[in-house]
Amino acid sequence: MNISYRLADIAAQLGGRVLGDAEARISQIATLEKAQANQISFLTNSKYRTQLAGTRAGAVILGEADAEATDLPRIVSDNPYAYFARVSALLNPLPEVRPGVHPSAAVGAGAQIDATASIAAMAVIGEGATIGAFSVIGAGCCIGANAVIGSHARLYPHVVIYHDCVIGDNLIAHSGAVIGSDGFGIAMDEGRWIKIPQIGRVVIGNDVEIGANTTIDRGALDDTVIEDGVKLDNQIQIAHNVRIGAHTAIAGCTGIAGSAVIGRYCLIGGGARILGHLQLADHVEIAAHTLIGKSIREAGSYAAIFPFGKTEDWRRNAVHLRHLDDLVKRVKVLEQELEALKRK
Amino acid sequence: MNISYRLADIAAQLGGRVLGDAEARISQIATLEKAQANQISFLTNSKYRTQLAGTRAGAVILGEADAEATDLPRIVSDNPYAYFARVSALLNPLPEVRPGVHPSAAVGAGAQIDATASIAAMAVIGEGATIGAFSVIGAGCCIGANAVIGSHARLYPHVVIYHDCVIGDNLIAHSGAVIGSDGFGIAMDEGRWIKIPQIGRVVIGNDVEIGANTTIDRGALDDTVIEDGVKLDNQIQIAHNVRIGAHTAIAGCTGIAGSAVIGRYCLIGGGARILGHLQLADHVEIAAHTLIGKSIREAGSYAAIFPFGKTEDWRRNAVHLRHLDDLVKRVKVLEQELEALKRK
Amino acid sequence: MNISYRLADIAAQLGGRVLGDAEARISQIATLEKAQANQISFLTNSKYRTQLAGTRAGAVILGEADAEATDLPRIVSDNPYAYFARVSALLNPLPEVRPGVHPSAAVGAGAQIDATASIAAMAVIGEGATIGAFSVIGAGCCIGANAVIGSHARLYPHVVIYHDCVIGDNLIAHSGAVIGSDGFGIAMDEGRWIKIPQIGRVVIGNDVEIGANTTIDRGALDDTVIEDGVKLDNQIQIAHNVRIGAHTAIAGCTGIAGSAVIGRYCLIGGGARILGHLQLADHVEIAAHTLIGKSIREAGSYAAIFPFGKTEDWRRNAVHLRHLDDLVKRVKVLEQELEALKRK
Repeated sequence: MNISYRLADIAAQLGGRVLGDAEARISQIATLEKAQANQISFLTNSKYRTQLAGTRAGAVILGEADAEATDLPRIVSDNPYAYFARVSALLNPLPEVRPGVHPSAAVGAGAQIDATASIAAMAVIGEGATIGAFSVIGAGCCIGANAVIGSHARLYPHVVIYHDCVIGDNLIAHSGAVIGSDGFGIAMDEGRWIKIPQIGRVVIGNDVEIGANTTIDRGALDDTVIEDGVKLDNQIQIAHNVRIGAHTAIAGCTGIAGSAVIGRYCLIGGGARILGHLQLADHVEIAAHTLIGKSIREAGSYAAIFPFGKTEDWRRNAVHLRHLDDLVKRVKVLEQELEALKRK
Repeated sequence: MNISYRLADIAAQLGGRVLGDAEARISQIATLEKAQANQISFLTNSKYRTQLAGTRAGAVILGEADAEATDLPRIVSDNPYAYFARVSALLNPLPEVRPGVHPSAAVGAGAQIDATASIAAMAVIGEGATIGAFSVIGAGCCIGANAVIGSHARLYPHVVIYHDCVIGDNLIAHSGAVIGSDGFGIAMDEGRWIKIPQIGRVVIGNDVEIGANTTIDRGALDDTVIEDGVKLDNQIQIAHNVRIGAHTAIAGCTGIAGSAVIGRYCLIGGGARILGHLQLADHVEIAAHTLIGKSIREAGSYAAIFPFGKTEDWRRNAVHLRHLDDLVKRVKVLEQELEALKRK
Repeated sequence: MNISYRLADIAAQLGGRVLGDAEARISQIATLEKAQANQISFLTNSKYRTQLAGTRAGAVILGEADAEATDLPRIVSDNPYAYFARVSALLNPLPEVRPGVHPSAAVGAGAQIDATASIAAMAVIGEGATIGAFSVIGAGCCIGANAVIGSHARLYPHVVIYHDCVIGDNLIAHSGAVIGSDGFGIAMDEGRWIKIPQIGRVVIGNDVEIGANTTIDRGALDDTVIEDGVKLDNQIQIAHNVRIGAHTAIAGCTGIAGSAVIGRYCLIGGGARILGHLQLADHVEIAAHTLIGKSIREAGSYAAIFPFGKTEDWRRNAVHLRHLDDLVKRVKVLEQELEALKRK
């Protein structure tokens, strides 16, 4: 990679205030620990200032509070972490893709593929599907009939989008993601499960990222909805008729059961479970590995994790959980008896 | 979609008792809240009667207890939820598929594909594999050598079935499902793991549905077995040599460890974990996010979930779990001392 | 399968001591319960000797302690479980694959595919990728640009490896595994998430096995590293910049958050969660469904599982967890008051 920029160039594009040598030229971004002389690093928290002292980076991004903590050429930003993200994007542009349809791809009748879009090898585009401008459909992706994908999408290999789903602009979807599979809808009838057709769609807003092997089921009757700016990590399961509010971020392995409604700007930790038909307010944070079994009406941070310990300690303590109600009753009896004794 | 039916037509096909205008014509099914005049809705629980009062649906499905709760044209059924499923299937038939093998598919030597089956683009059918009548193999699916798939299967894009697996009729498998991957069999020998070949198969009965990105490992020596009518949601992991009893339904993200035997008509909540070599009786219900660490011999409902709370409350309470055994001992000492005091 | 071996042949290849008829010929391996006369079985634990008494196996593998527990032709080994694994591999060689590139595969410019390697139907090999000697790339696999795969790899259908990842020899990767997807790196800026480019790679050592639908994210700046001999079951999520020490084995559905460092020879149970930036020492064992929220500096076994019970019992007990801190305070008050009473 031969891209390089002077600090002055970067600040001209991204803002921020340059201190020290604005002619310093950098070509990559790296951690304080590993950065070399032609690389820029970043300090997002003053408590890591000791690492700053030892860095061999050629330049550094930092906040106002740390502006004078080094003599290195530097860019001062209100939000050095976001600035780092922007510099990294500048230094690491996505690889160019050639517009057009790879000869091995299969395109169904009536599909509308923008001339600037790129369809990779082995991809299958269903009948009547629409692929927007500058969108990149990776190798082996399958786009269902009449699905609509906006502009500037980037689908890595082996993403599957089922028929009729509608997706906004700037989607990033990683390999193995499945969008629009049938929700888990079954009805028991005389000892057998009957399938409930899943006739809703998945509707996804703009600026959404979906991790590898994440699954989003289509709605049973109405749609499953992922609002603008939602970020989903890997191996998340979103059941039918869920709605995820704008700018909510969900870490890997989380499962959200049917018809749950998640607010905006929520942060959900890895492996969390949200039961069906619940509602979470905006700005709710859920700890990793926590099951949420009731709606949460108030912003804030919620958790439910059994603290780990050495197995023998855990076992000695955990056994009492089966008798906690008895313990509480014993304490109540003690309180009453002690009160009686005191009165004597 | 231009399909429409009179209520009289529906009842003629599916049974049930029509009240009100049997000539009312409906073309889709929808919730009480969203249904329009040309749509039928359903009431499965009397407690939602207020929604019934406000619906704009053209007709409604309901149970005997609610038969007179509306003046709308209606069909009365013993099981309105199952009836709804059947009406939806009537109004939303699966899209027609063309029999035959797409020119881009790769079919191995000796594969037997029924003339009524459909093999989509980019699918790979292994040597000696068998695809039954009216089965639909979606785009990019891979069917291993000598695998057998019965009739009326519907495999969505990117299902993988490994060699030698045997599957009954009416399979539905969603994208990313993997059937027959190697079980996790390793033996430690002088500081290195040796792989234990997984020479069993996966054997699946009739009328099974498998969710997106669900994985079912082949047996180590004997087979992994999924009995008739089992319904598996997305992202479930079934380890080697598990047996799942007929008509059991398992919600998403559940993991079942090796050689566990699950009974018939069990209901397993999302994110549950069943440890290896356990046995669960028929008609066992497991709550979401619950680990089952011992066999369950008796039908019934079982759970183990840490109740969530605000993080500061949770932390204040949870810390005591590491000392629960001490607390129990302290209560015992209190009881003894109080008893001694009372005796004085 | 017509392979068969005399016990003498097996011992000549794999070591061990033959007792009884060394000419006994066996053609498959099976459990004590199911083995037939032409099959060999194994006893790995003396407590199953009663099964040994009833077996119809033609021969058996066992340890020194059980060497005289049967009259059957037998092979005595120090490690009968590992010996069983080796015998099974001998009797169940992998199917032969034809070297060469299937005509339907798409190979990018500059890709280097060893002449002994096999590229199956619909596979896509990126520009500049390297596939080592005797490696088998299954149907529909996608290998990213400039990725390097060593020798003797076996990729089952639909494995995706992103660009620039580097993999040692003897990789086994099951269907749906995704290696090198972007880590979950986002920075909040004025109400919107900005993507942090993930410019690290995934670097995998020799002798690694990766289960079906497991995902391993590429590093944000530095690499994600999987050391030699690591064994990963299905549906595991490995976040960016994780390092997994050599010969660690991880069961299915486990999630490991970003930058966690796992030691060598660890054993991690199914559905466990390891939070980000933690360190686990060598030889740490984690129970299934356990969240690890702090670094573990000492080898040993750790757990955190809420014990399950009948739902009504669980509910009666669990409700007190929200008031455990109060209970502890009440016990403290009781202790103080009782002490005061005793002093009177």
